[in-house]
Amino acid sequence: MRIITIDREFGSGGREIGKRLSEALGIPCYDQEIIEEVAKLHGVTPEQIESISEADMRTAYPHTIGHRFIAPRLTSHDSVKVAVAQQEGIRKLALQGDCVVIGHCADIVLKGENPFNIFVYADQPSKLKRCISRSEKDEDQEEILRMMKRIDKNRANYRELFADTPWGRKENYHLCINTSGHEVKTLIPALKMHVECWFANH
Amino acid sequence: MRIITIDREFGSGGREIGKRLSEALGIPCYDQEIIEEVAKLHGVTPEQIESISEADMRTAYPHTIGHRFIAPRLTSHDSVKVAVAQQEGIRKLALQGDCVVIGHCADIVLKGENPFNIFVYADQPSKLKRCISRSEKDEDQEEILRMMKRIDKNRANYRELFADTPWGRKENYHLCINTSGHEVKTLIPALKMHVECWFANH
Repeated sequence: MRIITIDREFGSGGREIGKRLSEALGIPCYDQEIIEEVAKLHGVTPEQIESISEADMRTAYPHTIGHRFIAPRLTSHDSVKVAVAQQEGIRKLALQGDCVVIGHCADIVLKGENPFNIFVYADQPSKLKRCISRSEKDEDQEEILRMMKRIDKNRANYRELFADTPWGRKENYHLCINTSGHEVKTLIPALKMHVECWFANH
Repeated sequence: MRIITIDREFGSGGREIGKRLSEALGIPCYDQEIIEEVAKLHGVTPEQIESISEADMRTAYPHTIGHRFIAPRLTSHDSVKVAVAQQEGIRKLALQGDCVVIGHCADIVLKGENPFNIFVYADQPSKLKRCISRSEKDEDQEEILRMMKRIDKNRANYRELFADTPWGRKENYHLCINTSGHEVKTLIPALKMHVECWFANH
C-alpha cells in the first residue's frame, strides 16, 4: 500500500501539493475528510470537531502521558477524545488503500504502514505572499503573520502529543521541499516520481 | 546556467548522489577537482591543500570577521589562504557552465548564480552501514562513529566561516533528501526531474 503523508508550514502550499500530488497519482487525498469522518463516527458536526483546536488539546492532555499516546489513559475532556478520534479516523480512511494524508500527524499514526513522509516549507515572504493572495477578508500583514505563527505553533504542540521528535525536523521526513518563490504545481512531476521511485524500491 | 550544489552528512551517500546526478544530467561534477584546481593555481600539491583541514581553518580565522567572508581581511595564516583559494577554485570551475558541486559551501559561494541546493542526510544506522561497507581498513564501529561525528562537526564549523545560518538547517536548501535504508541510485531519476523542473520554472 502506498501512503504519502504531507506535513507543512502554514502558507507553504503543502495542502495544494497534497491535493495535486494525489490527482497526479490517481489516489484519494484526505484532509478535511478526516474531520468529516470523525464527526460521522461520533455523531457530531464537523464544525464541533474543528472548534476544538490543537492548542486546546495540548492544554487538556495530561503531561505525564504526553509522549506515550499509543494507548493513552483518557480523561473525560472532549478535546482529548477528539485527538484520539482523529487518529481512528485517519486509520479508517488510510487503510482503505493508497492515499495522500495531509497533516494530523499522519506520519506517526500510520508509521506501521511505512508511509512516504514529505515536509513542505518556505521562507516567510513567500508564505506571506501566498496567504495574502488567498485571503478572503482584507486582513493586514501583521495579522496574517500572527496567524501564521500561531497555526504553526499549534501544529508543533499537537505533534508533541504523539512524538518525541519536534515538528518540522528534517530527520522525521523522507523528503523536505522548499517552495519559496515557486508555483507549487511545477513541483508535482518530480514529487510524483519521488513517490514512485520510493515505493518501487522499498 | 544550471548549478546544483550538494551538501551532505558524512556517510549519507551525498557524494554518490552528486556523481550520479551529474552523469544523469550530462554535466561535470566538481569535488576533488576543486582541490586539484586550487593546488594548480597556487603551485602546491593536492595533498598539501588537503592536509589543511576545515577545523584548522576555523581556528585560524579571526573571530570578528567570521561572518563576513565575502572580502575578508586576510591574515598570513596558510589555512585562511586555502579557504579563500577554495572559493576562487569553485568559482573558476563552476562559472564554466552547468555543473554539480559537492561540499565546500558552494551554495553560499555561488549564491549569485542561483544554484539549486540539495542537502543529503540519513539516520545513523544507515550512515554507519554505508561507511563500514566502504571502509578499506578493518576499522571498528566506534572508530567509524567518532570519524563521522568529527567530519560533520568540521563541516558545520567550516560553514560558520561563510554563513550566518547553521549547517544542515533545511531552510538553507531547496530540497533535503533522507537516504536512510536506500540505494541512492534509485533516487536519481526523481532528483534529475527536480532539477529540470526547478530550472525550467525559475
